[in-house]
Amino acid sequence: MPEKHLPSTSYVHGYSDRESERLADQAQTLANLLHDDTNFPRGSQVLEAGCGIGAQTVILARNSPGAHITSIDISADSLKRAEENVRKEGITNVMFRHGDIFSLPFEKEQFDHIFVCFVLEHLADPRGALEHLRPLLKKDGTITVIEGDHGSAFFYPENDDAGRAVQCLVDLQREAGGNALIGRELYPLVSSAGYRDVHVSPRIVYVDSSRPRLAEGFTKLTFTAMVEGVGPEVERQGLMTRDAWARGIAALYRTGEHDGVFCYTFFKATARK
Amino acid sequence: MPEKHLPSTSYVHGYSDRESERLADQAQTLANLLHDDTNFPRGSQVLEAGCGIGAQTVILARNSPGAHITSIDISADSLKRAEENVRKEGITNVMFRHGDIFSLPFEKEQFDHIFVCFVLEHLADPRGALEHLRPLLKKDGTITVIEGDHGSAFFYPENDDAGRAVQCLVDLQREAGGNALIGRELYPLVSSAGYRDVHVSPRIVYVDSSRPRLAEGFTKLTFTAMVEGVGPEVERQGLMTRDAWARGIAALYRTGEHDGVFCYTFFKATARK
Repeated sequence: MPEKHLPSTSYVHGYSDRESERLADQAQTLANLLHDDTNFPRGSQVLEAGCGIGAQTVILARNSPGAHITSIDISADSLKRAEENVRKEGITNVMFRHGDIFSLPFEKEQFDHIFVCFVLEHLADPRGALEHLRPLLKKDGTITVIEGDHGSAFFYPENDDAGRAVQCLVDLQREAGGNALIGRELYPLVSSAGYRDVHVSPRIVYVDSSRPRLAEGFTKLTFTAMVEGVGPEVERQGLMTRDAWARGIAALYRTGEHDGVFCYTFFKATARK
Repeated sequence: MPEKHLPSTSYVHGYSDRESERLADQAQTLANLLHDDTNFPRGSQVLEAGCGIGAQTVILARNSPGAHITSIDISADSLKRAEENVRKEGITNVMFRHGDIFSLPFEKEQFDHIFVCFVLEHLADPRGALEHLRPLLKKDGTITVIEGDHGSAFFYPENDDAGRAVQCLVDLQREAGGNALIGRELYPLVSSAGYRDVHVSPRIVYVDSSRPRLAEGFTKLTFTAMVEGVGPEVERQGLMTRDAWARGIAALYRTGEHDGVFCYTFFKATARK
């Protein structure tokens, strides 16, 4: 799931305190679901490859307070925001460097652990990226990869236009050279890049109305808002009629209402060099 | 998931010992995933509503050896097979009775717990069934409901014909008055039938080639074989061409091969009267 689509200040802006609280609450729920079992030891050297604006960096650094984290990103702008976000949180164990995964400014066998989260989905050659990272790991070093999978989303009430709207997002991400369905593919991907002891676990986000904060924060303000974000491009390319698109988006929001249900699965892979 | 489609002797027949072992192994994995947290106390009165041929009855009775289980089914034939299956396992805490959920031969408030597994998906009025069961529970008695959801299935490599083949199964089950997507709906369904403290948890079956027994037993011999089973009806109704159907089934089997991945989500609801 692209970081830029995760709840950010642009969504929060204009919302009430209660809604901000819901967002914070669901962000914590997701952070626990995805990151709780990633705790790198004191003194270990960790590379975060593709930190974006630092949304995951903050969680990573908090869960591994004794580790020395180096976070890189290809975008200098994102990197600047990541630095600000990390500084704002009072975190001191992260160093930032500008760099491309495919030509990294590091020596071989420099890291104990590599962490890659919501990055591979945007790359035309995700396997190549994993292959480029592997030499940077020390012997027996580990890699951790987390990705979403938009094709894993299903919901109640069902709605064909909603299904098509999600498919538009998948198609547009593919057109842009990425792969919104990469989560399901992590096991063969990481294995074929030469890593061993590959272990993949699915992390399902299940939301019904007993979990109103997740319904608000995840179903509506994360997933549906993300789909909604490609509306202008869908219209420009004529992928759906304006009416069908509006019905689809409304139906997705509907799944966050009183009797709605929403499911989405993230995948987390760990492996050794 | 219909019991008749779970691995039975008809699949095992003709398979090698190693394959039988795989089936037994995956059946145990699934049993753990779905049933491990259902343990009814010694002396409690439990109703299993819709036991079919007893596949779940055996697991239920083993996990709650001190409970008095009454298992009913609308089909006398199934009931007979269930009795045989339970007797064969040496289980003695199950009593069988012939009966319809909509007109059960029991007094009010007779049971401490009710258990319903892979039944609602076949009923035209699942909410009505839950409403009919509720009076049979003692005050604060619990109901446990387990259902699959065929729309939760996704896999790698992706394949459009495979997706259409799964959709045929969903369509045919709907045509027969059932609902193969009922899993996602459990929370609103159980809530609207008047139960309280409804809690639903998803149980995802994730299969990659590090789990060859699940790939064989679940991906191929449970899920794909189940889809394959409606082939003649799909052909009769002309829902897919014979070639497209064959490609879809082959693609589903393919997801159980060396670099394939398969995901399916069951849902388990618990609630109080």
